[in-house]
Amino acid sequence: MESPEAKTLGVGMVGYAFMGAAHSQGWRTVGRVFDLPARPVMSAVCGRDADAVRAAADRHGWAAAETDWRSLIARDDVQLVDVCTPGDSHAEIAIAALEAGKHVLCEKPLANSVDEAEAMVEAARRAGERGQVAMVGFNYRRAPAIAQARRMVAEGRIGVLRHVRVTYLQDWIVDPEYPLVWRLRREYAGSGALGDLGSHIVDLAQYLAGERLIGVSALTETFIRERPLPAGAVAGPGGSGTGGAARGPVTVDDAALFTGRFGSGAVASFEASRFAAGRKNSLRIELNGDHGSLAFDLERLNELSFHDHTEPAADSGFRRILVTEPEHPYLEAWWPPGHALGYEHTFVHQARDMVLAVAEGTAPAPSFEDGLQVQRVLAAVEDSAERNCVYTPVPA
Amino acid sequence: MESPEAKTLGVGMVGYAFMGAAHSQGWRTVGRVFDLPARPVMSAVCGRDADAVRAAADRHGWAAAETDWRSLIARDDVQLVDVCTPGDSHAEIAIAALEAGKHVLCEKPLANSVDEAEAMVEAARRAGERGQVAMVGFNYRRAPAIAQARRMVAEGRIGVLRHVRVTYLQDWIVDPEYPLVWRLRREYAGSGALGDLGSHIVDLAQYLAGERLIGVSALTETFIRERPLPAGAVAGPGGSGTGGAARGPVTVDDAALFTGRFGSGAVASFEASRFAAGRKNSLRIELNGDHGSLAFDLERLNELSFHDHTEPAADSGFRRILVTEPEHPYLEAWWPPGHALGYEHTFVHQARDMVLAVAEGTAPAPSFEDGLQVQRVLAAVEDSAERNCVYTPVPA
Amino acid sequence: MESPEAKTLGVGMVGYAFMGAAHSQGWRTVGRVFDLPARPVMSAVCGRDADAVRAAADRHGWAAAETDWRSLIARDDVQLVDVCTPGDSHAEIAIAALEAGKHVLCEKPLANSVDEAEAMVEAARRAGERGQVAMVGFNYRRAPAIAQARRMVAEGRIGVLRHVRVTYLQDWIVDPEYPLVWRLRREYAGSGALGDLGSHIVDLAQYLAGERLIGVSALTETFIRERPLPAGAVAGPGGSGTGGAARGPVTVDDAALFTGRFGSGAVASFEASRFAAGRKNSLRIELNGDHGSLAFDLERLNELSFHDHTEPAADSGFRRILVTEPEHPYLEAWWPPGHALGYEHTFVHQARDMVLAVAEGTAPAPSFEDGLQVQRVLAAVEDSAERNCVYTPVPA
Amino acid sequence: MESPEAKTLGVGMVGYAFMGAAHSQGWRTVGRVFDLPARPVMSAVCGRDADAVRAAADRHGWAAAETDWRSLIARDDVQLVDVCTPGDSHAEIAIAALEAGKHVLCEKPLANSVDEAEAMVEAARRAGERGQVAMVGFNYRRAPAIAQARRMVAEGRIGVLRHVRVTYLQDWIVDPEYPLVWRLRREYAGSGALGDLGSHIVDLAQYLAGERLIGVSALTETFIRERPLPAGAVAGPGGSGTGGAARGPVTVDDAALFTGRFGSGAVASFEASRFAAGRKNSLRIELNGDHGSLAFDLERLNELSFHDHTEPAADSGFRRILVTEPEHPYLEAWWPPGHALGYEHTFVHQARDMVLAVAEGTAPAPSFEDGLQVQRVLAAVEDSAERNCVYTPVPA
Repeated sequence: MESPEAKTLGVGMVGYAFMGAAHSQGWRTVGRVFDLPARPVMSAVCGRDADAVRAAADRHGWAAAETDWRSLIARDDVQLVDVCTPGDSHAEIAIAALEAGKHVLCEKPLANSVDEAEAMVEAARRAGERGQVAMVGFNYRRAPAIAQARRMVAEGRIGVLRHVRVTYLQDWIVDPEYPLVWRLRREYAGSGALGDLGSHIVDLAQYLAGERLIGVSALTETFIRERPLPAGAVAGPGGSGTGGAARGPVTVDDAALFTGRFGSGAVASFEASRFAAGRKNSLRIELNGDHGSLAFDLERLNELSFHDHTEPAADSGFRRILVTEPEHPYLEAWWPPGHALGYEHTFVHQARDMVLAVAEGTAPAPSFEDGLQVQRVLAAVEDSAERNCVYTPVPA
Repeated sequence: MESPEAKTLGVGMVGYAFMGAAHSQGWRTVGRVFDLPARPVMSAVCGRDADAVRAAADRHGWAAAETDWRSLIARDDVQLVDVCTPGDSHAEIAIAALEAGKHVLCEKPLANSVDEAEAMVEAARRAGERGQVAMVGFNYRRAPAIAQARRMVAEGRIGVLRHVRVTYLQDWIVDPEYPLVWRLRREYAGSGALGDLGSHIVDLAQYLAGERLIGVSALTETFIRERPLPAGAVAGPGGSGTGGAARGPVTVDDAALFTGRFGSGAVASFEASRFAAGRKNSLRIELNGDHGSLAFDLERLNELSFHDHTEPAADSGFRRILVTEPEHPYLEAWWPPGHALGYEHTFVHQARDMVLAVAEGTAPAPSFEDGLQVQRVLAAVEDSAERNCVYTPVPA
Repeated sequence: MESPEAKTLGVGMVGYAFMGAAHSQGWRTVGRVFDLPARPVMSAVCGRDADAVRAAADRHGWAAAETDWRSLIARDDVQLVDVCTPGDSHAEIAIAALEAGKHVLCEKPLANSVDEAEAMVEAARRAGERGQVAMVGFNYRRAPAIAQARRMVAEGRIGVLRHVRVTYLQDWIVDPEYPLVWRLRREYAGSGALGDLGSHIVDLAQYLAGERLIGVSALTETFIRERPLPAGAVAGPGGSGTGGAARGPVTVDDAALFTGRFGSGAVASFEASRFAAGRKNSLRIELNGDHGSLAFDLERLNELSFHDHTEPAADSGFRRILVTEPEHPYLEAWWPPGHALGYEHTFVHQARDMVLAVAEGTAPAPSFEDGLQVQRVLAAVEDSAERNCVYTPVPA
Repeated sequence: MESPEAKTLGVGMVGYAFMGAAHSQGWRTVGRVFDLPARPVMSAVCGRDADAVRAAADRHGWAAAETDWRSLIARDDVQLVDVCTPGDSHAEIAIAALEAGKHVLCEKPLANSVDEAEAMVEAARRAGERGQVAMVGFNYRRAPAIAQARRMVAEGRIGVLRHVRVTYLQDWIVDPEYPLVWRLRREYAGSGALGDLGSHIVDLAQYLAGERLIGVSALTETFIRERPLPAGAVAGPGGSGTGGAARGPVTVDDAALFTGRFGSGAVASFEASRFAAGRKNSLRIELNGDHGSLAFDLERLNELSFHDHTEPAADSGFRRILVTEPEHPYLEAWWPPGHALGYEHTFVHQARDMVLAVAEGTAPAPSFEDGLQVQRVLAAVEDSAERNCVYTPVPA
């Protein structure tokens, strides 16, 4: 049905849980909405359980299923490897894929440690010299309101930055009987709210500010130190469901609070928690500059608040921009003004930007380098938290 | 890749503009998210311009393209005809499809006149006896927050209904130089804000109330009576773009305001306008009963406001329910709590409900009968507006 | 303590219930906050029950108490009569006060009938020739956000007006067992939600629009037609408290919905109800013009929403102006930016404007003429409601 | 006009600027609204400039004016001394008043140093043994929504506390040309945003939590280190107005960010800044517990948000309680539901609570002890900020 000369880009995805489903939606939809220089083809998906990965392939529309990620990487019909596994396997898979000559999109956080992330950056650097693209999946950058906010900051609409304040609050483990799933175990998840939620907000803060944190002071807490083991699935990360009688230690943070300094002199505050009852996915960020302020709330992701401080005081105030106009980032391809986009659209936009980077050979953003830098901030946070909150520089 | 015995449902779509794109998204996605008794297959799309429909088929993922809707209906691989054309051709296409033994999903409003709608209902009645399904596309019923609101009304959470108030406000023709597109011409669109926006809010009001309007009093207005003709496209409905020097008369309403009575004694107010500067797609509905109230705003479509009037006064207030929990309608198939859905998800849900109705032989909702009844309300509104606002009964 | 030459203005108030308390707060505070050309002196308050009025004088700070309003009017230390009684006695008291040479501030609605209001206007006209001031107490005009909105409309910030929509919703009689207080009896209150709430919103709509309604179409409803008589107080308006076994008919409207036309061609919708569960004092008004829109909600009375439609679409949206800047109406005399005012401040501002009108001999606003015009709109509403909603012109 | 036997309480106020005006409003109004066991009499006000204090007495309704606070304290008609001066004179005046046998209400922060505050507590302790009352003016405790929130926390509605997060943001010195007023000079103000705004939020956090901070980690910043000297008023704190050519150093913090721990294990974050463009008086506080959450925003001071985490997920969400019901703290004395109070009402409530404490001999809250404890937290914050953010215990 399509012109024979159309360029294609074969995608292979590793992992098919929550993130895998979201990425699939992105790959399946992107070519239907955006004009692209290459058409993504959903070649193969990979998982360890043969039946389950077969079913996931059918469900999400992948042409083939693999049970060994090395086989997936080796496939001729895969030019791009999309890594959607938990953080402990990111480095191994991504580096192998890059060394095999594939482009890589890797879910956030880039890795569970700075060492792994550094190795990934080195692999991406070498691959980049060969024309390969490596991108890390901080998908919230692709919410149109966030992209619009970045555009406005870059245009000078808020002037000299003074403050960034971000919170990312959820409540899914408030109940002490919620079981000890993989996300609560350091060996799989690396850290808790810090890595999962904190990595998003550190990236967003730096992305929107257009500069990097140079130091942090942090405090972390684990409110519930022991939880029921997930019934029947103690060995691996896949376990979930209601807990049984046996209990095990929570080895990650439940909440992380930190402050930081940007090189410009602006200051920032961060809070990531899974213990904020009633806050489901509440990522809120505000930037204050001497010419204006911007504010965003992920639970209202089609809206951006902007205060123009250069206007007369009697007229001014935070305005709610409905980020659904054709002039807004990504929006020209979608619906008429006032028609809301949702969470998964960020993955469609991510797929678009990845395809464009591959096809046009432009530098990908956020790069693995960006992902490493976030990792360094998180490491400095953990370091500070262990050393009595003392201010801890982030290595450049 | 899928089990050979999987049942399929071949879909043919007529029209491929805004609504066609939205419906395509629905058909393409529904089987990837929901477990369905039959898999929809996007067999063919139809439009008058061969090149354009060919491009639309490629873009949206339809296997074939047709230029005559009669040919589309006649195809063996089409069991369901999805009518996405302007209202003036709904009756002819839908009736032909039903008579050809096809299931029909027809965009709203059902028709441009009560007579047409009655003929469609009669065709649907006969087709229903043969096991065919006919549904009208009031997609907003499928916003999870609306479906949740209906559930709560049905459960008695707001008690005896007293008030419904609805406004649907847009602003895309505030500028007097906006051209005379087909939506502003009675011969194509039937009416203006009334049919386009008013049909949605009449349906929603009756759906949520669970009862029908028995009479209305109405006032309509056309603020700008003459507009530039669209450059180069005066003959048909497709014209748009910036206007030229020639002008033509606006033959539909710019705004419609009406009040109404339900059989139960509850009263309602309605306003539909394309002249509310700053309101992009602002459909707001509120219901007040003696035990509680519900409120919804389409611009925040993942939220539902609920006031429980049976609680102590010191504790009570409108609560903002984030309608993203697995317990909410349609949500179990989507993302974790707090992850927003968008406008087009209503079309995915519509596709799901249509497939279920076809596969399970259940009565479709909203039916053509429901669509006819909305048409009768709109006719009574126009009648009242012409007769000095006098209260005008809606025929049963 | 004050300079002997300071000019004073003796005030006498009739009635000391809810409105009397609010007006007292206004008179007591105004000279402490605003620089005034004359200092109001709270000379005397009047009520029928000698003990109760004595207690009210002590409580609210009036120097003397009277039990006959004619005596109050006759006092030498009273130059201004403030009428805070139910509507059925407004005309008699206000006319007598004007004829006695006193300035008059009369609570809204001006009267219970157009005839009475006309007589009051005539008395005010004659008194005006003698330099007396007569003002009607539409206090919400004095909420700073409303005054700021009026200023912005007058400056052309919203351009040509297209729409006004107003609702005033309360919920204090949702419970069918709430007793039959005076406000639910036509002989004392004149009408129900229409006169009490509707008079406010008709005045505000016309005030903000800067023009008058020329016709209306209306529907009214009494949901609960019989209620318990207030225990032990069936004879007069003062009764309240929990109801007993005996019941009586509700003789006023519970809700009134109407639409209207302005002379300019703009259209308006109105709803006043005491049956909107969860809405405590929810007066919301929105104006849409071709250059912008304004919106206000009395439950957030320090805020004004403004959309500037002349801005680029990508930047624009409803901004929340916190109306607490010194540049805003009345605010220079109060607190620093961001410090909220409350409901009763509208009465302080009303007192200020009344004193200025008296001292400077300027035309008072809103005048009795304005009050009469509102009365004519309400009469047209009742007329239309009785005649099947037919569009009913408002006499000029 | 009042019964001769009515008990009175003579009040003398020192200072008559912003806080003096607000306190005057409180003393003038309290007896008109609340039933009190003693009637406050506004006996005398004190300030250094004889003409200015005379004018302030006239304006605000004080019977006499004094230019020496020692004379004011010595007056027989003064039983209560209300200290509204800048923080550097609090200790001297308050201690002298207590030693002279007077009750004392002292504005916040209690003092500019822990040493001074300790001396004040000791004086209050001795005075308390003689039956005198000493209270510190954390007026926001008296916002009805805050008092209601405290009530709900005490009732266990949010369960075990996990998080408190508070920000107090203003923007009045964003402009680098704003002059070097007394609030920006350490010798008068003690500290900057920290003492002025931070003291409020530390008190509120501890008050609502019902427990005390045991340690903090802090970062402070002065964005603009030099500002124009106020024209013609360099010597004292009274200077304001537009700046001249000469400049001087800003010796206080512009912003303070800190985290903290409560004894119970809950964690807290704080931010106080005068550099948040568009935030006028934005004090926001949220508490998360395992049974629910509460949130408040001073810019919407009649509202309290509450999430009940014990409700079914499908129904739950943050509800907006309009804190204007007679069941709410302080509200029975005011207006009907839905009628908003303002900022200055907190001072009326403070006056009420002070009179009750004096008349009934109950322990005042917040006590000087509470004020000292806030001072200790602020000192720990400054200490931590100077020592590289290291976690710093708050002395018990």
